[in-house]
Amino acid sequence: MPITTPLTRLLEIKHPVLLAPMDVIAGSRLVRAVSSAGGFGILGGGYGEKAWLEQESAKLAELRAPFGIGFITWSLAKRPELLDIALAARPSAIMLSFGDPAPFAPRIRSAGARLICQVQDETMARQALDAGADIVIAQGTEAGGHGASRTTVDLVPAIVDLAAGRVPVVAAGGIADGRGLAAMMMLGASGVLLGTRFYASQEADGADEAKRRICAASSGSTVRGIIFDLSRNNVWPAPFTGRCLINDHARRWIGREVELMQNVAAVSAEYAAAKISGDFDVAAVIAGEAVGLIHDIPPAAEIIERIASEAEQLLAGRRNSIASFA
Amino acid sequence: MPITTPLTRLLEIKHPVLLAPMDVIAGSRLVRAVSSAGGFGILGGGYGEKAWLEQESAKLAELRAPFGIGFITWSLAKRPELLDIALAARPSAIMLSFGDPAPFAPRIRSAGARLICQVQDETMARQALDAGADIVIAQGTEAGGHGASRTTVDLVPAIVDLAAGRVPVVAAGGIADGRGLAAMMMLGASGVLLGTRFYASQEADGADEAKRRICAASSGSTVRGIIFDLSRNNVWPAPFTGRCLINDHARRWIGREVELMQNVAAVSAEYAAAKISGDFDVAAVIAGEAVGLIHDIPPAAEIIERIASEAEQLLAGRRNSIASFA
Ligand SMILES: Cc1cc2nc3c(=O)[nH]c(=O)nc-3n(C[C@H](O)[C@H](O)[C@H](O)COP(=O)(O)O)c2cc1C
Ligand SMILES: Cc1cc2nc3c(=O)[nH]c(=O)nc-3n(C[C@H](O)[C@H](O)[C@H](O)COP(=O)(O)O)c2cc1C
Repeated sequence: MPITTPLTRLLEIKHPVLLAPMDVIAGSRLVRAVSSAGGFGILGGGYGEKAWLEQESAKLAELRAPFGIGFITWSLAKRPELLDIALAARPSAIMLSFGDPAPFAPRIRSAGARLICQVQDETMARQALDAGADIVIAQGTEAGGHGASRTTVDLVPAIVDLAAGRVPVVAAGGIADGRGLAAMMMLGASGVLLGTRFYASQEADGADEAKRRICAASSGSTVRGIIFDLSRNNVWPAPFTGRCLINDHARRWIGREVELMQNVAAVSAEYAAAKISGDFDVAAVIAGEAVGLIHDIPPAAEIIERIASEAEQLLAGRRNSIASFA
Repeated sequence: MPITTPLTRLLEIKHPVLLAPMDVIAGSRLVRAVSSAGGFGILGGGYGEKAWLEQESAKLAELRAPFGIGFITWSLAKRPELLDIALAARPSAIMLSFGDPAPFAPRIRSAGARLICQVQDETMARQALDAGADIVIAQGTEAGGHGASRTTVDLVPAIVDLAAGRVPVVAAGGIADGRGLAAMMMLGASGVLLGTRFYASQEADGADEAKRRICAASSGSTVRGIIFDLSRNNVWPAPFTGRCLINDHARRWIGREVELMQNVAAVSAEYAAAKISGDFDVAAVIAGEAVGLIHDIPPAAEIIERIASEAEQLLAGRRNSIASFA
């Protein structure tokens, strides 16, 4: 019997498993696969590539299952008109991460969509609640991609206590199996948001070689820092840093960030070339600590089935009482 | 009904809650309180202060409940004779952290005690299993005191998979309530080891002011680094660093470790004086990210009761199947 939580009821989904809006990687194909399997797919609006967003969101407009669209908030602030393109696809929710969601909340609400906010500490959580977030995602430092320093085990109960039952809290960062979902529910979360696990799926719009590297990596083989942002001339505001697989390029520059900045023209040219040629010894594979739990590249539907059934088994027997603390 | 796991059966304890062997803080009074309440107290042998160890372990010799004694392995290696003092108190287990346990395993085994090893990554876990560890503790970076960089959510399932049911795995780092115990059991752990939570207990041998600061601190207000070890002239081997509350002294020196080393004579004199006078704006309060969950200073027995009953409620219904995955 599926796990029912305030999150599944609010989003009208079968399983409390959300696809993270991974820039470029989470296209309409992956969103469709996740949502059709009873999870909640969120399109990776990322930095807001207009043509891509128009194309991918249009493909979702006729999807019958609920889905969302995600943006990097500080980037959306530079091109706020992109929100209209997203809302035109009639998503059930817009997810905002990394920046103040308040300026966008009224348009999202008046379009009838839910507001999902991803946060990295209590201050950001309060900001999200003040902006009227319907769902708060507590993202730990284990997460692939951008994030901050607090860990999932530390942050999730802190945000659950802060939300105090007003909105469902979702856990993100380092989760890739049913054990993780069940554990996060014990901490008071109402579901999980997964990025890295879905990267290594059939439907993700990533290079096969990147997916293979995620499968081959063990936990402890990712690093959080600013090297890949520096190398691609993509400056993020503090306190955010990015986590990716450790590769030759990362090993070369870890601890030498200042030198990298002094040579940024040459390094970024080399980096851009590596991205085009798919040379992942130089170009980063964005991924989190969950890589240690990932060993295959199945269809997204199979990932959801596995996670849901493993968690259901672990939680078996306490099913009826879940709602009371989730 | 108490939670039964392979750990509780092996150590013959009622609740799967272990007291961390906190140097100086976990004296015989706290060990007695924890073990008498159905947990497993572990005396903080720490760096091995001989007179203290003789005195405190002698006080435990007549304790009827099972208990253990812990050492910092690389420090014990300098004074291996301290192990005899510990074994003379007839502990059920010796806990070793931070170094190769192999040289000590035969003496521990032949004295009829169990060997508990705390590890921070897979390599150390393999070393512990090769040395014949009966219990492996997976310690995440959230932990108070010394540790390394991998997080609890990442490390626990990794070590559970590696142990593959051969020995119970215990989770440590960032856990202070029943939610944490229940969550760690979902990840496959057989119990938890708590330091910071028990520091803020009546029976801990810490300064009242230190305990008050733990209660007042929010999560996100601790830092892992080498400043307090540098300041007390206590050089640890890599990859270990120490986590403590951020105070004026930490704020002054974070990011200026090299300068601190260049002024170490003056700084360490100031630091030593602050330790003596109980000035915790300078002297470190060793504590982990769990501080955010800690708001009071109850008797240790009450801490155990709360954690056990909260976890029991969360796990209610799946009690019979616990043994199969713990
Ligand atoms: C390849 C990749 C790209 C990501 N891109 C974004 C993004 O564009 N916007 C965003 O809000 N989060 C992004 N994230 C972070 C996710 O929202 C999420 O927090 C994270 O994936 C959860 O941790 P996990 O990777 O351990 O599952 C990305 C993550 C990955 C792995
Ligand atoms: C005040 C304090 C002192 C500690 N001293 C030791 C020690 O002497 N030996 C040891 O193995 N671990 C020591 N630890 C680490 C614990 O073994 C344990 O890993 C940690 O407390 C677990 O994380 P928590 O503090 O979040 O509960 C200490 C921890 C604290 C908080």
